This record gives sequence, structure tokens and C-alpha cells, in this order.
Amino acid sequence: METVTPQEPSGTTCPPPTRWGICSAGKISHDFLVALRTLPAEEHLAVAVAARELSRAQQYAQLHGVARAYGSYEELARDPEVDVVYVGTVNPQHLPDTLLFLRARKAVLVEKPMGISAREAKEMAAAAREAGVFLMEGFWTRFFPAWKRLKALVDEGALGECRVLQGALAFPLRSVERVREPSLAGGALLDLGGYALQMASALLGRGCPPLRLRAEGCLHPSGVDETVTVTLQYEGGKQAAMTVSMDAKMPGGAVLGGTRGWVEIPSHLNCPTELIWEGKREVFPLPPPAEPLNFPNSTGLRYEAQHVRECLLKGLTESPVMPLAESELIAEMMDEARRQVGAVGPGGTVP
Amino acid sequence: METVTPQEPSGTTCPPPTRWGICSAGKISHDFLVALRTLPAEEHLAVAVAARELSRAQQYAQLHGVARAYGSYEELARDPEVDVVYVGTVNPQHLPDTLLFLRARKAVLVEKPMGISAREAKEMAAAAREAGVFLMEGFWTRFFPAWKRLKALVDEGALGECRVLQGALAFPLRSVERVREPSLAGGALLDLGGYALQMASALLGRGCPPLRLRAEGCLHPSGVDETVTVTLQYEGGKQAAMTVSMDAKMPGGAVLGGTRGWVEIPSHLNCPTELIWEGKREVFPLPPPAEPLNFPNSTGLRYEAQHVRECLLKGLTESPVMPLAESELIAEMMDEARRQVGAVGPGGTVP
Repeated sequence: METVTPQEPSGTTCPPPTRWGICSAGKISHDFLVALRTLPAEEHLAVAVAARELSRAQQYAQLHGVARAYGSYEELARDPEVDVVYVGTVNPQHLPDTLLFLRARKAVLVEKPMGISAREAKEMAAAAREAGVFLMEGFWTRFFPAWKRLKALVDEGALGECRVLQGALAFPLRSVERVREPSLAGGALLDLGGYALQMASALLGRGCPPLRLRAEGCLHPSGVDETVTVTLQYEGGKQAAMTVSMDAKMPGGAVLGGTRGWVEIPSHLNCPTELIWEGKREVFPLPPPAEPLNFPNSTGLRYEAQHVRECLLKGLTESPVMPLAESELIAEMMDEARRQVGAVGPGGTVP
Repeated sequence: METVTPQEPSGTTCPPPTRWGICSAGKISHDFLVALRTLPAEEHLAVAVAARELSRAQQYAQLHGVARAYGSYEELARDPEVDVVYVGTVNPQHLPDTLLFLRARKAVLVEKPMGISAREAKEMAAAAREAGVFLMEGFWTRFFPAWKRLKALVDEGALGECRVLQGALAFPLRSVERVREPSLAGGALLDLGGYALQMASALLGRGCPPLRLRAEGCLHPSGVDETVTVTLQYEGGKQAAMTVSMDAKMPGGAVLGGTRGWVEIPSHLNCPTELIWEGKREVFPLPPPAEPLNFPNSTGLRYEAQHVRECLLKGLTESPVMPLAESELIAEMMDEARRQVGAVGPGGTVP
């Protein structure tokens, strides 16, 4: 028997692959490269990787089958075959690196946080708007199948009216320099808080600011925020209470309660692969990684990569799912939370 | 082969049954009677039930095999065969009813909250201390096997140092008059908040006051508090964030994160029968009820009844597990939380 393969309708051509440049050879860039390899090569192709040290870029290029390795980000910015750059540098570098690529008219997917302050986020958003070049903050959460299912339940009113969101994301990270040091824009809020705030913003605020934001927490001896609960009061009696900590082990779950029912993310609220809805577990498995990962569920970075490709194919300059205005709002909320707990940033500053 | 049954050591006699009087024929008193019937009759005996309407007391007496029914609480207070009274009246009646029985030198187990303000709690505690008569607030949670297991894990350091407690207890109760009305001392905090605060007090505070308490919430149109998050900061960077709501359906779970691990109560943090520890579910089933229950897991009231009996047999005038000073502290925390959100109590008062 003959197998009939569905064909592209005649007259259309397949769009070319999205050509990714990778800025920095850090842990998250490794995982992003692993995630890209779970996608079809005719759609996603990592064509260049750049690091401050050429040897490290070369090592990543070899491991992940990337054609070109650069010892500087400027060379990556000049590469004419790069469509979009993934910026995976440390927090304080997000601003200068993103600006570098936007000025070179490269689309940018920047790891969260989009800058270490609202001022920085606004500067990046303004630069993208001015250049008419695509920019998105890497809140990968919003592109996971489990998240989309949760969002669909909310949008179709399955929970009734959503009223209460509660979640806690915590890892013992006190020994990690990047998280511990004010000079590296460390702290639980900048490392984990954005996930909590984007979740409240998506599920309760729908991109609008809360009526009130209150943060209560304690600081690490270095001055960065160690454990913080942010409560957000939204119109219509909706409230979120999100806790982040760099000092405890927790499953990272969240639960959203409505007037008719609740849905739970039992763990990893930042990169969920399971939901509990009406008491039943729904599982959304990830593809297996070709290389060991640095972070849990990192092959899930594939979903935001797919979304970026869709946006670029449509000629969009920002994402309708994670728009720049919402990144600016989240950065403002983060500033306010850090201000309330007195968290110290680079140069000893409080936002 | 002969079976050898262990015998009481000769010379000792079995202590007599604890004779319970039940004050009020409300929903919770029904469940308490059902719970007592899961215990051996030679240890726990409900001997009298009193209600404002005699017919209702008679109905309860007949259903639960209780010898005597009274149409007033005063008659119950005068019953010489009652050792201890369970006070299951509405919140604003806890104070006068408890005082009535204490003055009659009856031990009292009073449903939470122990009074609707710290002033009331202190008055009740003072009356018990002065009379030298046993009084305990009915925080049944602390006597559940699942809770004892959790507490043992904490005490033996299995989680490392406990750092973060988060939980949410929420039921859609807006249609319940008792919970909705300021005159009945309604509101999410007085109905559910005590469970959250006693949990933080037991697990993080160990009976000591927090460094700071902050409450954020919104009010029902009636003026009672509808959804509230209380954050509690304790010495040593320990933090609790507990949300209660009378306006959402939630599983009622809680998670406690330490520096080495976490333990979760997946649902019903006020009356837990399951734990998740090191990723494994541990189940502590309840005995089946002889009659339908009004509230979830109510046969678990048996555990606090057992504890009260143990205290009385030892001649204690308060419980070492739920001491009066901690009830007073929790009442103070509750006042402060209700004050911060502007919750209205009986007579339009704010604590």
C-alpha cells in the first residue's frame, strides 16, 4: 500500500529557518542551545555563538554543531546571517548587550529580567520601538503547553471568576555568586520574582497594573533580598500572594482559585509540565534533551523560540503574548517590591 | 496455641470515661458528636447536649445516643456528671458561653476563634487561670496524625532550617450568613485565618510573636474581610505567607520549605490527612463517620478530644500543645490583621 504524504499546497514555499545567534556561553545559553536542537532544523538553526572568551564560544559551537564562534558580542552583532539573538548574559549586561544587537537591527530575545530596573527596561523597549526591531523578554513560562492549558481554562471561565493566586518559588541559591552579589544584580526578586509577577499579571491583572503592591521580606547579609512575599491587589477583589526565596527548597507550585474551582501547578511554576484540574493530573511532557541541562525543564525554552519565530514570520516587532509594555510594568513592580524591602543593587543602590 | 493478651499491671485501675457536655446543636457540634463516636465508649462519653431550643437538643441527643438534652446552656453548666464542655456556638457567643462553664468549674474545649478579639481571648484565659479550670481553644489541626508527622520532621531537622511557609485556605462562603455578617463576627480571618496563624506560630514562631505582621486584603460589601494575605516575618529570616478567602475554591494546601527540603500538605491545611515528603505521599486515613458530616474530615475532631482527655487525666489546667498564651497571641495577631485591612466586626467596630 502506498503512503500518501500531505504536501504543501502548490504555489506556497516553506519559510526559511530562523537563524539564531547566541550571546554568551553561560549555563542558560547552553540549555537554550539544547532546547533549539529539539526543534526541526529547517525551522530553527543556531548559526553563531559569541562569548567574552573565544575558547568558550568554540566549545559551545562544537558541542551544539554551531557554524561560527566569536570572541566578542560585537562580531556576533555584525554577522549578516543572524536573524535573532538570544541574550543569556548576567542581569546587569542585559541592557548594553540588547542595545548592541538592536542597533545592529537584530531581533532580540533577552533573558529575564529585561534590565535590572524599570529605567533599564524602558530604555530597551524604547530602543526596540525606535528601531522597529523585534524585542521580547524571555518569560518562557507563557509558551509552555501546560501554561496555555491553564490560561485556556481561565479564559473560558472554567474556574468561574478568578480570585486568588498563590505560589512560592524557592531554591537554596545563597552559594551562587550571581544571585548573592549586589554588583551582579542578585537577589530572589530579580532572579525569581519576575516569574511570580508575570504570573499574577497574566492571570489576574491581564497586563494592567495592580491597585496595590506590597512586599514583605528579609535581606541576605550582602544586602540583596533573600525571601520576599509580594501581595498584589487587583480590581474586583482579586489577590495574588507570591513568595520567592533564595534560601529554601520548595516545589515551586502555584494554585489559582476561582469562584467555581481551582487549578494547580504542583511544581515549577516558572516552567510547568503538569497541572491539576478538577482533582486530576494533566501531564505535558518535554522532549528529552540531547545534552545534560543546567536547569530543570530547560528544553521548554523551545516553546518561546517557536513563538519568536512565529512573530518574526509575521513581521511583528513585539510579541502579543509578552508585549514590551507588560515587561515595563513588571519591571516597575519589581522596582517597587525591591524598594519596599530595601534590596541593594549594583553600586549599593536601592531602586 | 494460646493467645496471650497484655493485661493492665495489677494494682492499677482504668480511668473512667471522660464525660462530655455539648454546648449548642449547630453543625460543628453534630460533627463533634460523630467524631466522639469513633472513640471507645469507655474513654469518651457524650452525656448531655444543650441548645437554645430544647427540640433541637433532643434531636441531637436521640441521633447520637446522648442521655440528656437541655433547652438552655445554664442547665448543662449545672449537670454534675459533665466533666468537660465542648462549646460549638457562633463566634460572638464563645466568650459568654465559655465563662458560664468555667464559672461552673467545667473544663472547656472552645471552638476557634477563642473570642472575637484579643480582649475576649484574654478574658477567657484569665477566667480559666483564676478558676484553675482547664480551657483549650479547639485548634484540632495540631492533633492530627499528619500534623504530628510534619511537626516531627521539623523538630528532628529533616528539612534543615525551616524558612518559608506558604498556604491558602479558601471556600466560597459568601452565601453563609455566619461568615458574611459583621454582627456574627464573620469574615475570612475569624473563620479561617486562625488556622493559618496557628500554623505559622507552631512551625516558625514556636509560640513567640513575629517580628512583623502585615495583612493585605479586600472587604466584602458587608464590611467583613473577604480575601486576606497575612505575611509574618520571624527571627532568622523565616517568613510565612498565608492567604484566606471566603470567595474562592482552593484545595487548602500549604508547603513548608527548609534549607534542605520541603514538606507539603496538599489539601485541608486545617485538618490534614495527607503529606508529601521527599516527593512521596503519606496518607493518614480517618475513621469512617457513623453519620453524614457537615464539614470535611470532621471525624478528625476525635484527636483533640483524645488530647483533652489526656490533659484532664493528668490534672492539667491547660494544654502544653495549644497553651492559653498562644491562643492569646493568635488573637492579638488576628486583631492586628483585621485592623490593617479595616474589617468590620459586631456593632461596626474595627479591632
